[in-house]
Amino acid sequence: MTLGNSENQTVPNSHNMHHHETNHETRHLTQVLKRAESEGTNVAAKGCCLQSTRYVSLTEKIEKRIENNDRWYSLEFFPPRTPSGAANLIGCFDRMAVGQPLFCDITWHPAGDPASDKETSSMMIANTMLNYCGIDTMLHITCYGAKKEAMLSYLNKAKDFGIRNLLALRGDPPVGEEWDPNKSDFRYGLDLVKFIRQHFEDYFVICVAGYPQGHPDSTSYEEDLGYLKEKVDCGADFVITQLFFQAETFIKFESDCRAIGITCPIIPGIFPIQGYASLRNIVRLAKLDVPKEILACIEPIKDNDEAIRHFGVQTCLDLCRDLLESGKVHGLHFYTLNREFATIEILKKLGLWLEEQPMRALPWKKTSSNFSRSKENVRPIFWSIRPKSYVHRTSNWNEFPNGRWGLSSAPSFGMLTDYHLFYMKLDASRDELLDEWGRELTSEEDVWRMFACYISGEKNQIGKVIRHFPWTDEELSSETSLIQTNLVEINRRGILTINSQPAVNGKPSSDPIVGWGTLDGYVYQKAYLEFFTSADNIPALRHVLKSFPNVNYHFVNKSGKVNETNIDDEQPIAVTWGVFTGREIIQPTVVDSVSFMIWKDEAFSLWTERWGKLYEPESRSHAIIENIADTYFLVNLVDNAYPEGSSLWTILEAMFEYQKSAKNTNNAS
Amino acid sequence: MTLGNSENQTVPNSHNMHHHETNHETRHLTQVLKRAESEGTNVAAKGCCLQSTRYVSLTEKIEKRIENNDRWYSLEFFPPRTPSGAANLIGCFDRMAVGQPLFCDITWHPAGDPASDKETSSMMIANTMLNYCGIDTMLHITCYGAKKEAMLSYLNKAKDFGIRNLLALRGDPPVGEEWDPNKSDFRYGLDLVKFIRQHFEDYFVICVAGYPQGHPDSTSYEEDLGYLKEKVDCGADFVITQLFFQAETFIKFESDCRAIGITCPIIPGIFPIQGYASLRNIVRLAKLDVPKEILACIEPIKDNDEAIRHFGVQTCLDLCRDLLESGKVHGLHFYTLNREFATIEILKKLGLWLEEQPMRALPWKKTSSNFSRSKENVRPIFWSIRPKSYVHRTSNWNEFPNGRWGLSSAPSFGMLTDYHLFYMKLDASRDELLDEWGRELTSEEDVWRMFACYISGEKNQIGKVIRHFPWTDEELSSETSLIQTNLVEINRRGILTINSQPAVNGKPSSDPIVGWGTLDGYVYQKAYLEFFTSADNIPALRHVLKSFPNVNYHFVNKSGKVNETNIDDEQPIAVTWGVFTGREIIQPTVVDSVSFMIWKDEAFSLWTERWGKLYEPESRSHAIIENIADTYFLVNLVDNAYPEGSSLWTILEAMFEYQKSAKNTNNAS
Repeated sequence: MTLGNSENQTVPNSHNMHHHETNHETRHLTQVLKRAESEGTNVAAKGCCLQSTRYVSLTEKIEKRIENNDRWYSLEFFPPRTPSGAANLIGCFDRMAVGQPLFCDITWHPAGDPASDKETSSMMIANTMLNYCGIDTMLHITCYGAKKEAMLSYLNKAKDFGIRNLLALRGDPPVGEEWDPNKSDFRYGLDLVKFIRQHFEDYFVICVAGYPQGHPDSTSYEEDLGYLKEKVDCGADFVITQLFFQAETFIKFESDCRAIGITCPIIPGIFPIQGYASLRNIVRLAKLDVPKEILACIEPIKDNDEAIRHFGVQTCLDLCRDLLESGKVHGLHFYTLNREFATIEILKKLGLWLEEQPMRALPWKKTSSNFSRSKENVRPIFWSIRPKSYVHRTSNWNEFPNGRWGLSSAPSFGMLTDYHLFYMKLDASRDELLDEWGRELTSEEDVWRMFACYISGEKNQIGKVIRHFPWTDEELSSETSLIQTNLVEINRRGILTINSQPAVNGKPSSDPIVGWGTLDGYVYQKAYLEFFTSADNIPALRHVLKSFPNVNYHFVNKSGKVNETNIDDEQPIAVTWGVFTGREIIQPTVVDSVSFMIWKDEAFSLWTERWGKLYEPESRSHAIIENIADTYFLVNLVDNAYPEGSSLWTILEAMFEYQKSAKNTNNAS
Repeated sequence: MTLGNSENQTVPNSHNMHHHETNHETRHLTQVLKRAESEGTNVAAKGCCLQSTRYVSLTEKIEKRIENNDRWYSLEFFPPRTPSGAANLIGCFDRMAVGQPLFCDITWHPAGDPASDKETSSMMIANTMLNYCGIDTMLHITCYGAKKEAMLSYLNKAKDFGIRNLLALRGDPPVGEEWDPNKSDFRYGLDLVKFIRQHFEDYFVICVAGYPQGHPDSTSYEEDLGYLKEKVDCGADFVITQLFFQAETFIKFESDCRAIGITCPIIPGIFPIQGYASLRNIVRLAKLDVPKEILACIEPIKDNDEAIRHFGVQTCLDLCRDLLESGKVHGLHFYTLNREFATIEILKKLGLWLEEQPMRALPWKKTSSNFSRSKENVRPIFWSIRPKSYVHRTSNWNEFPNGRWGLSSAPSFGMLTDYHLFYMKLDASRDELLDEWGRELTSEEDVWRMFACYISGEKNQIGKVIRHFPWTDEELSSETSLIQTNLVEINRRGILTINSQPAVNGKPSSDPIVGWGTLDGYVYQKAYLEFFTSADNIPALRHVLKSFPNVNYHFVNKSGKVNETNIDDEQPIAVTWGVFTGREIIQPTVVDSVSFMIWKDEAFSLWTERWGKLYEPESRSHAIIENIADTYFLVNLVDNAYPEGSSLWTILEAMFEYQKSAKNTNNAS
């Protein structure tokens, strides 16, 4: 909206905060699923073979919610100033996505090179939100400073990223500047609406801004209403309003809109007051008056941040409840100022934060909201712990594997280096990571202990819980808990696991830990283990594996010079699959020897890029990590005999035994 | 070879003969599988995703057998004179295929319009053998009467049918004619070899004839050997010999060939004496002398067919054993004269008839040996009882479903009428069929009883076992036995089942009844039932099905005007699938609502075409069948809850109950 880039502070990491709160208004799972179904590609059905994958526009989704008298919310963010701010913001998107907003939007920041490839640009943040965080995304676009040709290139770029929703705004000149007609081919939001429809027909959903108190530059409220009507008549699909402080402001505005024939959805823009300074700033930019009642409350507490936040949440809650109770409002659009706390608190109290997660549509933790990937339903298991990396490395694909992995997709993975540029950055500082992974390593065993602590959740030697891990974008998956004891045990002994899954033999697809897909199916998994281990273990492992013909293995060192597998190059192995009512079998994760060789480079590089680089180049710690990267093997094991559980633990035990007896023999001789 | 079309009698139907004989030399299954693996597309691996589907030529297969010291045989047939003879011969191919010949060949019959589309032509018989009977096929081709342009068109036609093996021969002019050089552009087999290599490079495997006693038209044995050398040098891949009577004839010939540098495989042609007249005829055509010892034995018994056959089998057995024991022979090529008896007896006694069947590569009873279909591994279940029809109706497809059915294949099914022209003919006479299905029908219940008898194997009212069935190419599958009692019961009550399978929840793939694929897997099925039933049952069925959300149904009448299903048009349902070591899930049979509508026309038409037509048009029997075809519904049911077995029997029972109570209510009111 007209909100400037007035705030860009980061908030304390609230990662796990919402997991421990109760929410009495949580909606029931079936309701979520029902909704998902009606919306085709949203929530549980997102990007998934389990639903017919017709494109369902954001407008259709909003109309469906209205029709079903079903409530929703959306969240607005602005682009960050710095790459590390961007990494933080992406973390924030991931956390906010948990609550299932219908969409999120990102403001257009003309001064910030908004269409560039910089990590901080509006365009790239929208791209990330859509493709990496799996959120249905709306990108703002403004008139100021835009020539037609440039606008066309912006819109095409947004289209190429898969963005389908635009908020078309006039936008203000930078603070202190006057509107310079030579700089822009567009004068009003209306011009943009017409331009977009002219060049892209119905490809984009177009949202426009409504001003419940009139636009500050309009001569009258009525003139402004007429102008809004014109925008809608020229092709805008729905309206989001500027912030306001009182429900009656919106309610009157809505009626006035209806009275002059605006029939599309009108969504109130909600601004939770989160601080005195930010409030002053916003109202200044939006040229709004803060009602006296609010000022009267706030002035006395203006130096007490805590009190202001508390007041802000309460005031906002009252406003939202009044709006929802009016019957004219089904969805609320929040101006978050890139902060999570207050908005999440309000959403939870309103029962709009969907605490109860829908069924995973597929075993992956996250699916893209990009419609071009909506039919994708097969991925190699290797990247299941790094979905952003996978999405990035396959972003140039025109078609995605559907139904089976096949043979054709593997060779065209994007370069590893592109990815490292940005998405590898975690929202943790070097200092935090050193605390977690060890300030000084004295032996490889120190590394083994880090792996064991990470998996067990136990504190490390200096009493820190290890929350980050070089090989994962995500938290440990809940199914890890099923094999945690075994995993911890082998990690302590130098089998450094980076990915694993237990065997599952036909559990109901509704199983809270291993289930996915629709409720009427059965899910299966082959036991899988992927780990780094010392080259010393390889001969013993090779020996033991001879007795396990049902186990597929692949070991490879960093250079790839040693590369042994019994997996057929042309035969990917399904390791997760599901059988559902009325469908073909769905086999979403595979182990594939060709893409394993691509993953291998990424997996080895993370030792250096994510861990080794924390230490001084000449330090012993650095040398230990580099030595592991250079000499250890990456191994994957699949036990195909899933009805019998997993023989992988037996294999590793036998490997240790064989090692020991070989050593004894050597010592004796 | 030079064998003319001298015999064309049919032999008594020996369909089940070989099932009851013991064979002490039967090879072990694992050996069969090992062999299949080494040959890529043969036997168990035939046309199947379970093997890498590299094209393996017949020459490679023969060389592999020699390398592995593994024995094999092949069978030669000549084209039939009449369409009914063709139907008989195809039945014979099906029965002989059971014993797993390495390949079969069909002679070129210049007088019989050999390249035409007639059912009896050499070309069409080879096409059928390859594509419908699943036998690796060799087509003879001869010089006499062939111009270059015609020859090119023959070869291209063979190529289009998927034929990869040719036996290039000179061929003799028709009896009584002299060689007319104006009629042929080719004079010798050598010319053909050169021509084929020139135009088709290595596409075809080329076999040529060798004459252990010299070609009758050669001036000397040595000249003839030199000529054979030239054929091999010009591109022939292996040699099959003219028939001979004594092992030493072949052994000397083989040594002589090796001595002059012929290194390719040389296969002895074996002629089991099956009658006095046919022996005389053959030797006359081949211009051979029958050894005195044989004549001395045969002359005294020449009027005793039984004794001659017995003598023929014994003599042939001795010859074959001598050849095999010489160490120079791994494969035997039999001149069958289109008769099964003697050859099967000899093969069994030699231990070459592979009594023990290999694992089915896929659940289908028969797979094509055509390499173009080698990657096909998904078919709709409807045609599983009519594989020839399916192959025919999809013979114009360029790609076959692999991995999943998808959506694209369905619309291009070939016309039903094409198929009806020929392949619908069964090797049973109208009289036999009337005996089995009833000479006079008095009610629909008579029809129901026929269905029940067919499935139970019980004799019908006039004491005949029902061996034929309008809807099947094949015998009942062995898994039918698992649900036979239930099936018989519902057929008696007017649920006329034409296809069914029991639920299977992860049985070993080696299971003798429901197993398929390689030995290291697990197989699954959803219970499936397809039946015709009176329109009266449909409302009750519709009502009952409401309580079974896990069941997919589809009912349709002949016109298709009533067409109800809860199956998504875009979602085929996997009803048979398997999970194997190191592979993606294989889901070879599906229920698909689009192809069901195509199958529906075929299924309804069989009432009329196969059954109704047996009766006089004005007869009551005819009217009963036509009335069923016109008014009954075709129904399919899939129970998706396979771990719980099948609820389909419960559903039908509930349907009958509901019917009964509805009737009682009607009667009471």
